[in-house]
Amino acid sequence: MELKELGEFGLIDRLAAQAARSLRPGTIGIGDDCAVFRASPQHDLLLTTDMLVENIHFIRALTTPWDLGRKSIAVNLSDIAACGGTPRHAVVSVALPPNLDVEFALGLFQGICDCAREHNVDIVGGDTTSSPRDLVINVALTGEVEPGRAVLRSGAKPGDLIFLTGPAGDAAAGLDLLLHHRQLVGEYPALAAAYHNPTPHVAEGRIIGQSGYATAMIDVSDGVAADLTHLCRASGVGARIFADKLPKSTMFRDYAMRVGLNIHEFAVSGGEDYILLMTVDPAHASALANLLAVECRRPLHHIGVMTADTGLEYVLPDGSAQPLIRRGWDHFRQSET
Amino acid sequence: MELKELGEFGLIDRLAAQAARSLRPGTIGIGDDCAVFRASPQHDLLLTTDMLVENIHFIRALTTPWDLGRKSIAVNLSDIAACGGTPRHAVVSVALPPNLDVEFALGLFQGICDCAREHNVDIVGGDTTSSPRDLVINVALTGEVEPGRAVLRSGAKPGDLIFLTGPAGDAAAGLDLLLHHRQLVGEYPALAAAYHNPTPHVAEGRIIGQSGYATAMIDVSDGVAADLTHLCRASGVGARIFADKLPKSTMFRDYAMRVGLNIHEFAVSGGEDYILLMTVDPAHASALANLLAVECRRPLHHIGVMTADTGLEYVLPDGSAQPLIRRGWDHFRQSET
Repeated sequence: MELKELGEFGLIDRLAAQAARSLRPGTIGIGDDCAVFRASPQHDLLLTTDMLVENIHFIRALTTPWDLGRKSIAVNLSDIAACGGTPRHAVVSVALPPNLDVEFALGLFQGICDCAREHNVDIVGGDTTSSPRDLVINVALTGEVEPGRAVLRSGAKPGDLIFLTGPAGDAAAGLDLLLHHRQLVGEYPALAAAYHNPTPHVAEGRIIGQSGYATAMIDVSDGVAADLTHLCRASGVGARIFADKLPKSTMFRDYAMRVGLNIHEFAVSGGEDYILLMTVDPAHASALANLLAVECRRPLHHIGVMTADTGLEYVLPDGSAQPLIRRGWDHFRQSET
Repeated sequence: MELKELGEFGLIDRLAAQAARSLRPGTIGIGDDCAVFRASPQHDLLLTTDMLVENIHFIRALTTPWDLGRKSIAVNLSDIAACGGTPRHAVVSVALPPNLDVEFALGLFQGICDCAREHNVDIVGGDTTSSPRDLVINVALTGEVEPGRAVLRSGAKPGDLIFLTGPAGDAAAGLDLLLHHRQLVGEYPALAAAYHNPTPHVAEGRIIGQSGYATAMIDVSDGVAADLTHLCRASGVGARIFADKLPKSTMFRDYAMRVGLNIHEFAVSGGEDYILLMTVDPAHASALANLLAVECRRPLHHIGVMTADTGLEYVLPDGSAQPLIRRGWDHFRQSET
């Protein structure tokens, strides 16, 4: 069987099962945003990694090297944020095609270093090699969190409210803009920037983690639908979210109307926003919202509620509900799943 | 300028300088086998990463997926060994072409998991994606070492003796065999295995590290000449090594004679043996040799001496000395440097 038949998530399931058989107790392994393990009595260590591959995750001609460098570390910062941790040290591997311009390589590293410095992360090592054709970047990032305080995907309870830390759909709209409506990029710069240069919610994740109010958290990389599905599966519960509660930026609404995107579909299934999705006991919801507003001027957006059955429902503005099917790009099948 | 003009080592120098500008004091960054930083009063944390790219580091048709999986983590284990640490947790990223057989992907992960388990390493996470054409594997590995006890490249002193933990040249001969003399593979299985499935000297590195006797250490991945050059440069000293003291396996000698390889050239410049090269004060040399013999039945091979001037000399069996030029494969230039 070839990979495109099994699909990405099928393969990940099999690989995770294979790795889990060799895990020691006390380590939280594959399947969360980060691995978490006790490093000392004073802190737990977080570890995460992400690989960006040319023509899969990015198209060289559509990005600047600096944006690409930033994004390659930002996606890892977002994983640390989703566990409520403080990012610390990164190692960076790059496979560079021989015909790549030296200035592109240096710009890429400048983006990585700049984004790292903004988040007090040290780039402490790496591996530089060549690639026959495609540019590949891998970042592995460590983080720290107080012992036992990492926020996982698995703690959501029925009745918990679901929140987002920012608007959904901007990055997917940005990709649509870059791929299909290049002539409009000048009119929607924030959408292109949301796709090229996402802002990981590191400070937000840390405040949420320290507050102890979030029962579960995940970052939105595959899309709200796909990532909420991951969280529900890990927690053994279901969810109901509301299309008209999903926060959408004015620019996204305007662009979607103009080019004829299904706005509710795009907001729930578009990936790469790198906002945080969390579940909170209703008794703590306003305290958490106040905390985020005060500490980092970030509003929390209530989008739904966790349910006892394991189904996932998407309630449209007309009140009709449809099953929330995990949507998201399957890299092997090259199609929506 | 394109990368192939600047070359791999030229680029690495520029990237390292770029990253070093943002490093905090107390962290030992790019340029050693691992990054080392204080994680708690009880231990220092080590972090290393290596990327293997198809048609650069391996040819899919010449390896089994299991061997490839093992090698992709073994090269990282060797870096932890070179710092005298205990390997702990790994994250694995793979970019898999869509036409790859599922069995190949599963065999690859089985090799990674098997090698990890042998060394008590937990695979705690990763990233699985697709690749347009080439298979890419990246492993990032953490390790631990007692505070301040990591063995670095930079501690060698003039007069220190230079040792290897095993024979040099087997892996390079194995690659020569696979590429140019396939019909002889059955006669030299150990050479093919040395290339496909290297054994990282983890237990040896740990014993050497704990002993406190090694003033500097590095693993031989680029070749004795190249890696000794790295060590000399980091330590600010020179070295003189002797061709007839470089340990060579019987099978390597036999193969080199048969196919007409320059045995002294191959042993000093061939890469990927993943043995350890260390420098030791002469007063401690026999104690360290005894320790390794008792603890892991591993002989230490004395190959030369560190010198006060910064030159590197290779003394041939006829007594003539030639400058030891850093040889090693430059991935961007696609030629020996």
